[in-house]
Amino acid sequence: FCLLCVCSWSVFVCVQSCHATKPNMLNVHLVPHTHDDVGWLKTVDQYFYGDRNDIQHAGVQYILDSVVDQLLKNPDRRFIYVETAFFYRWWKQQSSSMQQTVRQLVNEGRLEFVNGGWCMSDEATTHYSAVIDQMTMGLRFLNETFGACGRPRVAWHIDPFGHAREHASMFAQMGYDGFFFGRLDYQDRARRMMAKEQELLWRASDSLTPPVADLFTGILPNGYNPPEGFCWDQSCDDPPIRDDPDLEDYNVDDVVKRFMAIAENQALVYKTNHIIMTMGSDFQYENANLWYKNLDKLIRYVNGLQSNSSKVNVLYSTPSCYLQELHRANLTWALKTDDFFPYADSAHDFWTGYFTSRPALKRYERISNSNLQTCNQLEVLGGPVSRKGPFGGGDSQTMKKAMAVAQHHDAVSGTEKQHVANDYARKLASGWQHCQVFQISMILSVSVALIQFSVSVYNPLARPVTWPVRLPVNGTAYTVSDANGKPVDCQVSTVQEVLLYSSLKTLCVLVFQFLKVTFDPDTGLLSSLSNLETQQSIKLTQNFYWLVYNASDGNNSLSIQPSGAYIFRPNSSTPFIISSTAQTEMVQEVRQWFSPWVSQVVRLYADSRALELEWTVGPVPIDDSLGKEVITRLDTSIQTGEYFYTDSNGREMLQRKKDFRPTWQLKQSEPIAGNYYPINSRAFIKDDVDQLTVVTDRSQGGGSIHNGSLEIMLHRRLLYDDVRGVAEPLNETSDIFPEGLVVRGRLLLSLDRPPSAADAHRPLAQEVVLQPLLTFTDGDLNPNTRLEFSGLQAALPPAVHLLTLSQWDKDSVLLRLEHQFQSWESKVNSQPVTVNLQKLFSTLDVLGMSELNLSANQWKDEMKRFDWTPQKGTGRPNLPLTSLQ
Amino acid sequence: FCLLCVCSWSVFVCVQSCHATKPNMLNVHLVPHTHDDVGWLKTVDQYFYGDRNDIQHAGVQYILDSVVDQLLKNPDRRFIYVETAFFYRWWKQQSSSMQQTVRQLVNEGRLEFVNGGWCMSDEATTHYSAVIDQMTMGLRFLNETFGACGRPRVAWHIDPFGHAREHASMFAQMGYDGFFFGRLDYQDRARRMMAKEQELLWRASDSLTPPVADLFTGILPNGYNPPEGFCWDQSCDDPPIRDDPDLEDYNVDDVVKRFMAIAENQALVYKTNHIIMTMGSDFQYENANLWYKNLDKLIRYVNGLQSNSSKVNVLYSTPSCYLQELHRANLTWALKTDDFFPYADSAHDFWTGYFTSRPALKRYERISNSNLQTCNQLEVLGGPVSRKGPFGGGDSQTMKKAMAVAQHHDAVSGTEKQHVANDYARKLASGWQHCQVFQISMILSVSVALIQFSVSVYNPLARPVTWPVRLPVNGTAYTVSDANGKPVDCQVSTVQEVLLYSSLKTLCVLVFQFLKVTFDPDTGLLSSLSNLETQQSIKLTQNFYWLVYNASDGNNSLSIQPSGAYIFRPNSSTPFIISSTAQTEMVQEVRQWFSPWVSQVVRLYADSRALELEWTVGPVPIDDSLGKEVITRLDTSIQTGEYFYTDSNGREMLQRKKDFRPTWQLKQSEPIAGNYYPINSRAFIKDDVDQLTVVTDRSQGGGSIHNGSLEIMLHRRLLYDDVRGVAEPLNETSDIFPEGLVVRGRLLLSLDRPPSAADAHRPLAQEVVLQPLLTFTDGDLNPNTRLEFSGLQAALPPAVHLLTLSQWDKDSVLLRLEHQFQSWESKVNSQPVTVNLQKLFSTLDVLGMSELNLSANQWKDEMKRFDWTPQKGTGRPNLPLTSLQ
Repeated sequence: FCLLCVCSWSVFVCVQSCHATKPNMLNVHLVPHTHDDVGWLKTVDQYFYGDRNDIQHAGVQYILDSVVDQLLKNPDRRFIYVETAFFYRWWKQQSSSMQQTVRQLVNEGRLEFVNGGWCMSDEATTHYSAVIDQMTMGLRFLNETFGACGRPRVAWHIDPFGHAREHASMFAQMGYDGFFFGRLDYQDRARRMMAKEQELLWRASDSLTPPVADLFTGILPNGYNPPEGFCWDQSCDDPPIRDDPDLEDYNVDDVVKRFMAIAENQALVYKTNHIIMTMGSDFQYENANLWYKNLDKLIRYVNGLQSNSSKVNVLYSTPSCYLQELHRANLTWALKTDDFFPYADSAHDFWTGYFTSRPALKRYERISNSNLQTCNQLEVLGGPVSRKGPFGGGDSQTMKKAMAVAQHHDAVSGTEKQHVANDYARKLASGWQHCQVFQISMILSVSVALIQFSVSVYNPLARPVTWPVRLPVNGTAYTVSDANGKPVDCQVSTVQEVLLYSSLKTLCVLVFQFLKVTFDPDTGLLSSLSNLETQQSIKLTQNFYWLVYNASDGNNSLSIQPSGAYIFRPNSSTPFIISSTAQTEMVQEVRQWFSPWVSQVVRLYADSRALELEWTVGPVPIDDSLGKEVITRLDTSIQTGEYFYTDSNGREMLQRKKDFRPTWQLKQSEPIAGNYYPINSRAFIKDDVDQLTVVTDRSQGGGSIHNGSLEIMLHRRLLYDDVRGVAEPLNETSDIFPEGLVVRGRLLLSLDRPPSAADAHRPLAQEVVLQPLLTFTDGDLNPNTRLEFSGLQAALPPAVHLLTLSQWDKDSVLLRLEHQFQSWESKVNSQPVTVNLQKLFSTLDVLGMSELNLSANQWKDEMKRFDWTPQKGTGRPNLPLTSLQ
Repeated sequence: FCLLCVCSWSVFVCVQSCHATKPNMLNVHLVPHTHDDVGWLKTVDQYFYGDRNDIQHAGVQYILDSVVDQLLKNPDRRFIYVETAFFYRWWKQQSSSMQQTVRQLVNEGRLEFVNGGWCMSDEATTHYSAVIDQMTMGLRFLNETFGACGRPRVAWHIDPFGHAREHASMFAQMGYDGFFFGRLDYQDRARRMMAKEQELLWRASDSLTPPVADLFTGILPNGYNPPEGFCWDQSCDDPPIRDDPDLEDYNVDDVVKRFMAIAENQALVYKTNHIIMTMGSDFQYENANLWYKNLDKLIRYVNGLQSNSSKVNVLYSTPSCYLQELHRANLTWALKTDDFFPYADSAHDFWTGYFTSRPALKRYERISNSNLQTCNQLEVLGGPVSRKGPFGGGDSQTMKKAMAVAQHHDAVSGTEKQHVANDYARKLASGWQHCQVFQISMILSVSVALIQFSVSVYNPLARPVTWPVRLPVNGTAYTVSDANGKPVDCQVSTVQEVLLYSSLKTLCVLVFQFLKVTFDPDTGLLSSLSNLETQQSIKLTQNFYWLVYNASDGNNSLSIQPSGAYIFRPNSSTPFIISSTAQTEMVQEVRQWFSPWVSQVVRLYADSRALELEWTVGPVPIDDSLGKEVITRLDTSIQTGEYFYTDSNGREMLQRKKDFRPTWQLKQSEPIAGNYYPINSRAFIKDDVDQLTVVTDRSQGGGSIHNGSLEIMLHRRLLYDDVRGVAEPLNETSDIFPEGLVVRGRLLLSLDRPPSAADAHRPLAQEVVLQPLLTFTDGDLNPNTRLEFSGLQAALPPAVHLLTLSQWDKDSVLLRLEHQFQSWESKVNSQPVTVNLQKLFSTLDVLGMSELNLSANQWKDEMKRFDWTPQKGTGRPNLPLTSLQ
């Protein structure tokens, strides 16, 4: 990653204000904190104001009011704040004197920002591009508002439901010294507690040279809650410290005794004489006095016993102060190179449902990201004129903020209430509107002219793409010409008639330039796939299935956990087949009907090496009172053994093995759900000869349960809540779909030789992530209109991806160029590559450049991170994937 | 009342800080307040600390912390505080700088105390003596802590379930300028709203010359809650003011519009261009920022419209600022002379159950009051020695505080949860222990010597009494001698054998010096009562009955309201008779068995003009799944028409008429419960010739449903909660009574000629309220021991009651002497009477005296109250009772 940015930095004097610890004692770091979901049961703005407290009592404006008040009352007190989406809203409503007060608290280390992104992103269903954007937005605000003292040193993902390796890699590259989280597999935690490996070193990339992507990682002792009996928030019922001997129920001795016992027990499962306790939880500290008043007393009374030979020292602290003590301990730490998926909190409770929950929202988030990148680029390329043109004030900020909140771990994850999902979608739609002004401004002068109407196509990738443009028309013959007036190849197909066709009973073959697909004439199903270039061919069957959680099933003797927004828990490991045959019709595409609510169109395109499966699922019927989780399964002749591969946040690929975890002896309790992993952009199966890669158009869950098989979950309609807080079954309907949501999506299949498969799937996946943007103009164009424009002087080399091109401030631009190949995955493209920035842009003159960290909140050459020593022999080494199996 | 007290007064400068109002606008007085029950669902100390928040979220320590913080943030803000029991606990935990800050807020009128007693007392079941004590304790603390600026000017009983005339009279005599409450009969409210009589002048005594007992009384518009949609506490769900146009759901216009509509509607039912809104509720303001932040905005946005011709002016205010505006309006006000009992909140929801709920606690509270008065007197008479004698540090404070919290409207009322009732009892028991030290110190030197053991008897009344002393013994013959060695008349009766007797089938007559009672030989029931002195005789039948709320009864078509701690709602107006006959036995007393769980002993005593009915009820059986409410009913030959009479808080008597309310046209919907009134110390029925007075030993409920009949509810055991918040059926059991509580009590019956009946029942009731205290000493006494002692030089005249004799501070004593007869009730005793204080005490020298108001927080001659003008012709004049009927 490299960054181009000229921005101004204020110089502050930060006081490093960690409280002194005592070397010969057990030091208990109390970390007062609040966990403020950027939308979940309520929308982000409802949470901010404390509206709709009938749904959930939570008002972030009051939390920040109250915490600042309470910090001022006692300089020993500490607080950390995490979600900049909320902090930003609050900050801009404050008086300048209050702002000055808060600056002072930050400079003195009494209020510390941790994580500091716009939200605490989901790790399973987010694309790295959008995560970097949201982190950058939050960190930039902190940087511009508080300078260096506001820069978070610790990443803090206390709630996300499983942890992606790519997130750890990004955090390392953003300059974080450490990372803390709360949730991991219950078996993994049990082993780590025994082995004192709850604090470890995560080596989060197999391509970046250590320690670039090394991240110290700590697992918190109680999720992110306080220890039992010590929750003093207004939302808790634990007994306060009653220290007035004149009143009833004086309990200081009891409280101190209970606290010491908890601290000593906790110390048994950590390595140093420092332990951390998270004193807070969801939306706590709205009335911070309750917490602090009792914490003050706790500290006073526990430490008071030191004069009486107690060896427990308790102090107000922050994650960075705690981390500093761990670093000073100068120990070696267990190494980990895989990730923390899937997450199960008990034997039958796998949080693998949310990989697919709300597939329509997941898709809308993904194309919004594409749109935002385009919007950013147009803003740069259009210059100041486009921001205040004749069509009103365009801005990318609205979309940036909408996308940033959509990364939240109850947003794109699909684990929010329906009305909140609607709000995220509405915010994205508003973002689109604000971006449209750029498109109109820009594209009215750069367009492709057509008879009757013009379509402009903006490609946000830094290289040419071939892209089929499908437009609804009502004539039967059209002429389409490009910017130079040359005819463009086009087909007109009649959509309305397809339902009248019956299946063809002859062998059916779809062949184009690079690929051949055959369909079984008896079943109408896919039967083989061939790559004509590489001369490879595999048997390939594809069908659709559904899984079900049935409350009255005998399986429930094991557990009554139902499937829900978070959890995937089918009763049976054998999915129900929707139809063993498909009514199949071939026009210039193949259309398959599996049932009234499952159909698919199979297409090949000229110049494309991928087979497109455009699936349509819904409304999922529930008249049998059964919720259903719909998957498609590809069964192939590839000898996969028990392996398959999924991407991490759209970037690096990770190997997965059935019923296996790299770092502990797994006891598998859910044969399907326990083998599901997040698929962000692609998954593949392979053997020595063939690799079948499936590129998805949104985040989905999937697994490989059988040899040669790869299944992907497409849609979920559930009738029970899975008791993780949403209190609403995941049963999506809308005004347009009162009978249940219909979802459509695309899978792109690529069949290649393993050593060169990445050369195909890397650009293919980027083309799905960043799509050409179409804009339509009615009537004839102004003859002076430029019909073609490129912001680049030439296409970027294949290994380099234009991740970000965005206006930073009036005179500077943020540019992120990414080497998109893992070090081992391509003989050609994995090599280092050089780009000349001076010759990159067609319309921008580069006057200077400075390199920053990944999140653009610190000069790259000033980024100094703690060094950590891994234990020898721990952590199964993360060999390149090609050498495994 | 007159008072002897020498206490020091600080001089403060109070700033009268009411915000300016606008004469040509509707002024809306917003009164931020919290209602903090001194025990209800949690104990008083649990409420203070915020313990047991699983039962109810409430922590008063945090409320006061938070309110002070928020008042400091904006000098416009106001707050009122009510319950000194809580404020006192908080105050003594504060630093001196915080105390100084609070003093400043009080002096500037930003924090105002209203009511200011130790608690907000119940009005139906409290005795005036205990109410004066608790008010004095709270007001004294405020006075000594804050001086004149801390003196509440307004009484504030926003929650009690009906309002006693004696309370209004006391408040007037304590110097309050006005009184506000929230609950009154729904029909009464409806009429007063129509007539704009929700603000009125209450003439609260028929003996005191107006305006001594006149009290301006305001009925609050929403109970004590904020108007609908405007509750901004952490416990509420109303939408906050969202005034950031950049965030979703900007709602300022909507909020302002709704507020204006509510204000204008409210103004329609009040007289002036000022209205009050109570902005707060139960235990609110724990996080005061939520309230104030939104109130600040409300005021800003509503008043902002004045520049746009709006005529609504909204301001932070307090009850005294509001009252001042009403006074300035210089209008005439409707007059009321009766009281506000019973209270019904809808047609079938009469809050008359709590008159009797928890009869054991009610009795314990009453004898604790007697004990406290004795304790106070012994402290005065014993002098400093007794407070730090050889038996440890005795004190009356513990009992004073226990009694003060017991006056709370969910304490002696019986409307608290069981564990809270236990806590009140425990606190009283602790008070007894602390008082015992005085008794031991004092009584070891002043005793009556007996063989084997000595019994000392302390009489807290200021005149001699005849009092039977009943002691358990195991011999058969005893000699008892008095202080002078003279024999005392005594009987030994064998209690163990009584159950073996069968009923006597001969005419049974019990005759003693003054009274004759006959029993029907067929039924075993009382059949007549005669006063041998006055030669009067009435037929008198007494029996026991129970009423029942049956959930499956057809009556529930009207309403499903069950009986519970607060509510009395039997299905049928005809009570079930427990037995039409009683097994009756006469020894020297008459013993009656009505059922295994209802029995009674009837006694006459030498020198006593009263017949004692000692009833025992329980365990009330519930094996039929029916809760039961047990009454005893006296049916007489007295021609009562539809009238009967009950006392108000143990002082003045009020006339009651069946199915009638003096100030509005009653539509009766509950024939029994709607005719029940609180009986604090006595009730009577009468005609021209005979008056039968029943003196009770605790607060009970009762009514006169039939001609000649008087019924009193003795015990209640209920299986449903009555949905008024306790969430617990009133079903008392304990370790000693696992099958259900057994309760024993006494009714004293006096038959007299009406014009002189008070001469008998006034002293009789005082003897029940203030009982002789017995103390036992084992073995022989020191021969130097004084065997007899009186603190008085001579008995007080019959009309004068020694209400209070209590140590005030080191050098001064608080004395309250009360003329205990109403102006019309006795030819002899209603006359003015003179007492010479210098000749009152046997051991105290009176060096000086100063007269104070009733609550001892203001010099009598400095007590200046607002004058108010009653409307002519309103309020049915309160003629003396003798002239009615």
